[in-house]
Amino acid sequence: MTPAELKALVRTIPDFPKAGIQFRDITTLIGHGPGFAATIEWLAREISGAEAIAGMEARGFIFGAAVAARLELPFIPIRKPGKLPCRVIGVDYELEYGVDRLEMDPQSIAQGQAVAIVDDLLATGGTAAAATELLRNAGGLVTRAAFVIDLPELGGREKLAERSVDVSALMNFAGA
Amino acid sequence: MTPAELKALVRTIPDFPKAGIQFRDITTLIGHGPGFAATIEWLAREISGAEAIAGMEARGFIFGAAVAARLELPFIPIRKPGKLPCRVIGVDYELEYGVDRLEMDPQSIAQGQAVAIVDDLLATGGTAAAATELLRNAGGLVTRAAFVIDLPELGGREKLAERSVDVSALMNFAGA
Repeated sequence: MTPAELKALVRTIPDFPKAGIQFRDITTLIGHGPGFAATIEWLAREISGAEAIAGMEARGFIFGAAVAARLELPFIPIRKPGKLPCRVIGVDYELEYGVDRLEMDPQSIAQGQAVAIVDDLLATGGTAAAATELLRNAGGLVTRAAFVIDLPELGGREKLAERSVDVSALMNFAGA
Repeated sequence: MTPAELKALVRTIPDFPKAGIQFRDITTLIGHGPGFAATIEWLAREISGAEAIAGMEARGFIFGAAVAARLELPFIPIRKPGKLPCRVIGVDYELEYGVDRLEMDPQSIAQGQAVAIVDDLLATGGTAAAATELLRNAGGLVTRAAFVIDLPELGGREKLAERSVDVSALMNFAGA
């Protein structure tokens, strides 16, 4: 399937989670078997050379874990606070309103291991930048992130470039 | 890898989330590339014949989505309340203390479609039974569920058998 065909599988929901936001919904993309598999193939090619894949709860698990299994690589779950049963390291980061936090198991990365981030959506890049910081604190080398959707006007690609992370995105929606 | 080798990759964390509980932690299993890929292969074989895979947020996404992508099947995310942007159907179910709720997009299933449930852990079966009810309300045929871990003393297999759902599990931990 072509990128244009895959983009046509994404559903747009107006005014979610609040008025004026056009929510790009991947439920319909992953609900299409060949489309979901083609998306995973594309992501897997983009992060070739990675030694481990990290994904952020919860939608990042859908894409990141499938890419990791496809490539027989470790999957590193980056979770919301209090979810992991082990000793964790965490990072706080700012949202538009308030602060959020990500956590991971520091033992899930070998020192110097090349880790690629996979997620569904790149918006401002705040979550991916926080994940990069967290993975680097654990000893990972983070130079690449692959997304299904990029909203280019929100500047996520530039924010990650400032942190020396190259971004790939299967599709983008301008005017978001 | 053999089931015994895969079982050895699961980490046991004592007294999580509360005293007396031995938490079986799949973080270390998915953090082992060949082990994670072998787990997905096993699950994919067990649910052969399914036309779609459903997984429950959040750990169920890790295994369910990877199985769906492997088989080029649709993945149906079953989510916690308020997460899906579309019109949803939901089901409430009882926990040991209190009530929880699962939601899904009713449009993600075709009438009569054979849907298999994939999750990390089968304990009492409460969540999987609720997911079965929800998927059936959406028109799905649910006859099979595959888990990485079964805690057989908690009766989940029997609870699902009462609902005509056959259970497969890659490994079990007795004395849970």
